[in-house]
Amino acid sequence: MAKIFNYKTLTAPKSLLYSIEDLTSFSIACLKKVGARQSDAREVSGVLAMADLKGKDSHGIARLRRYVDGLAQGKINAQATPKIIKESSGSILIDAQNGLGQPASIFAMSHAIEKAKKGGIGIATVLNSNHFGIAGYYADLACQKNMVGIAVSNASPQVAPTFGAESMYGTNPLAIGFPINPQHSFLLDMATSIVSRGRLERYRWQSKDIPEGWIIDQTGENPESLSEIISNLKKRIRYSLLPLGGFGETTGGHKGYGLGVAIDLLCGPFIGAGWGRHVYGPKGANLGHCFISIDPEFFAGLPYFQIEAQKMLSELQSSKKIKTAEKIYFPGEKSSDIAKLRKEKGIPLPLMVVDDLKKLSLTYDVPLSCEATYA
Amino acid sequence: MAKIFNYKTLTAPKSLLYSIEDLTSFSIACLKKVGARQSDAREVSGVLAMADLKGKDSHGIARLRRYVDGLAQGKINAQATPKIIKESSGSILIDAQNGLGQPASIFAMSHAIEKAKKGGIGIATVLNSNHFGIAGYYADLACQKNMVGIAVSNASPQVAPTFGAESMYGTNPLAIGFPINPQHSFLLDMATSIVSRGRLERYRWQSKDIPEGWIIDQTGENPESLSEIISNLKKRIRYSLLPLGGFGETTGGHKGYGLGVAIDLLCGPFIGAGWGRHVYGPKGANLGHCFISIDPEFFAGLPYFQIEAQKMLSELQSSKKIKTAEKIYFPGEKSSDIAKLRKEKGIPLPLMVVDDLKKLSLTYDVPLSCEATYA
Repeated sequence: MAKIFNYKTLTAPKSLLYSIEDLTSFSIACLKKVGARQSDAREVSGVLAMADLKGKDSHGIARLRRYVDGLAQGKINAQATPKIIKESSGSILIDAQNGLGQPASIFAMSHAIEKAKKGGIGIATVLNSNHFGIAGYYADLACQKNMVGIAVSNASPQVAPTFGAESMYGTNPLAIGFPINPQHSFLLDMATSIVSRGRLERYRWQSKDIPEGWIIDQTGENPESLSEIISNLKKRIRYSLLPLGGFGETTGGHKGYGLGVAIDLLCGPFIGAGWGRHVYGPKGANLGHCFISIDPEFFAGLPYFQIEAQKMLSELQSSKKIKTAEKIYFPGEKSSDIAKLRKEKGIPLPLMVVDDLKKLSLTYDVPLSCEATYA
Repeated sequence: MAKIFNYKTLTAPKSLLYSIEDLTSFSIACLKKVGARQSDAREVSGVLAMADLKGKDSHGIARLRRYVDGLAQGKINAQATPKIIKESSGSILIDAQNGLGQPASIFAMSHAIEKAKKGGIGIATVLNSNHFGIAGYYADLACQKNMVGIAVSNASPQVAPTFGAESMYGTNPLAIGFPINPQHSFLLDMATSIVSRGRLERYRWQSKDIPEGWIIDQTGENPESLSEIISNLKKRIRYSLLPLGGFGETTGGHKGYGLGVAIDLLCGPFIGAGWGRHVYGPKGANLGHCFISIDPEFFAGLPYFQIEAQKMLSELQSSKKIKTAEKIYFPGEKSSDIAKLRKEKGIPLPLMVVDDLKKLSLTYDVPLSCEATYA
């Protein structure tokens, strides 16, 4: 069973390779063991799988434990069904009732899409929700229906405001997708901080030092190890992530900060969910998400859009490069290349994640075997 | 008449002070002399005035010449009226018919607001348009009606893609406004590049060197003067602005690039306007803008939103600061402070801008006198 692969997208010096199908079955089985409905388990596992395929490793199967523990401890309600609070021709407000974030978000985006098909644009918001995985999944749902999709969410507080030294709001992700052609979407999926905590975790898996300028240390003392930094960041001690644009205002840190807070306003106060430091309480999460879809048919039309968009992306990609660059990418392209490779060759999981899965496997008596090792 | 003022928001070591009323009357009069309708001249001048009041000097009266020249040369159609191409319950597509960008944009945002009042959200897009001034003006229009406002536009190509060395798309601004209370809006108004070219112009007025990391020089040769940089940037020679997040991907430059291109896709191919290098042609501009409004009443309601939003901003502002900082701001707050000061004390214009206005004054026989000098 042990084959040696060597491909450049492996996340860690030492990894095991798993097929996406095996990981997905494993995830579904574990979630069901802690009470999730079959359909919910499938949807959550589908979002995790997309993250693993696209190389967003920290948001893939590595997060399964979080959902399983949440359900097992009753912090996430396995029996919740999304409840519609308010609805109009173009808008819907949904209460996730403290259920898993993914099924509520898929439900919400499908409503946004339907509304956009009738009136050009639709908005669906979700309160009382949990972590929804990668924002890009939901924007891509719209793309699959030939629609534009936008997805934003607030998140646990890990970012310091410009000129601030404390974690006051989340990495509040923003995803925007455009259906470029049946094979490709333009898919921007970004934290509004320079990096997410997940990115730090990937550096830890790889035993690499993180670059300067990603985090702020309110003590100014000697730096700790990356493991300690990540652990303290989670506890909101000492460290915070910096907004996109970096420290201060000179390189535009106030813009990343502004974007993050705008998303928090929309996903928190505007819809009635938690915000800032109050998105997670002792009883569980009250995260908010917002999904918007726009239908090309109400504007220039899909065929025109796709022809022009393709021209635009081609012009960008054939423009003059800096000397050290191989290629100019458009958002979503790199992930899409990684996904192709990983579908074929498997998902490389660092040993730290494998250990976690083994524990889940033992606890819930769900088998999982790897395809190959990579040393 | 010459009083000496000394307040910290003056833009240049040597400035003249003008009252906002005088500048606005001057602007209206000049625009009318080149054929603009009274109502259009008022709207354009109102947008310029807001920029001057809020300290966005490069987008204020300093841009008047551009509009006046455009109208005088027939590149902007003084007689154009916005024409509705498509309309639905939630969306509208408007042809500005190569008229001034501001009246078409005000018209569009008012439609987005009306649609949002009926269905929760409304979108209005404008093609075949010209420069619309500061994006924040339109987001703020929605805030004044107690609505959320979003405004984006494409712009002349000045930014290099991540790993690119040529100007392929614009500083494509994004503005988001939330009505926090009758006195204050949360108003994020940002170029998706680290800085706009206007920011470079302000450095030139102040005879200051620009910080490293704002622009990329495809030659790698000895740097030229800031005047030469600005002039070449306009001509798309040698220099480009860098996306928010900076050079490469390490500090998230691909995110700023992604945002800029997403706005270009929406304002260009999606609605049928120009994009990338093709927003300005020999016959004039074909810029695109997009405006979205969302009504709080379809979500948590305005009173709830305003109470929670105020709490959220207060928590941010009372959080721990870095040692060297006086204050943590929220987007729009600094500009709003500057506006208060400038309403009272006048708008400081650097001599370079004053010279330009003097030429306009002579050419079109419209008087303009300053209130005081500041040395």
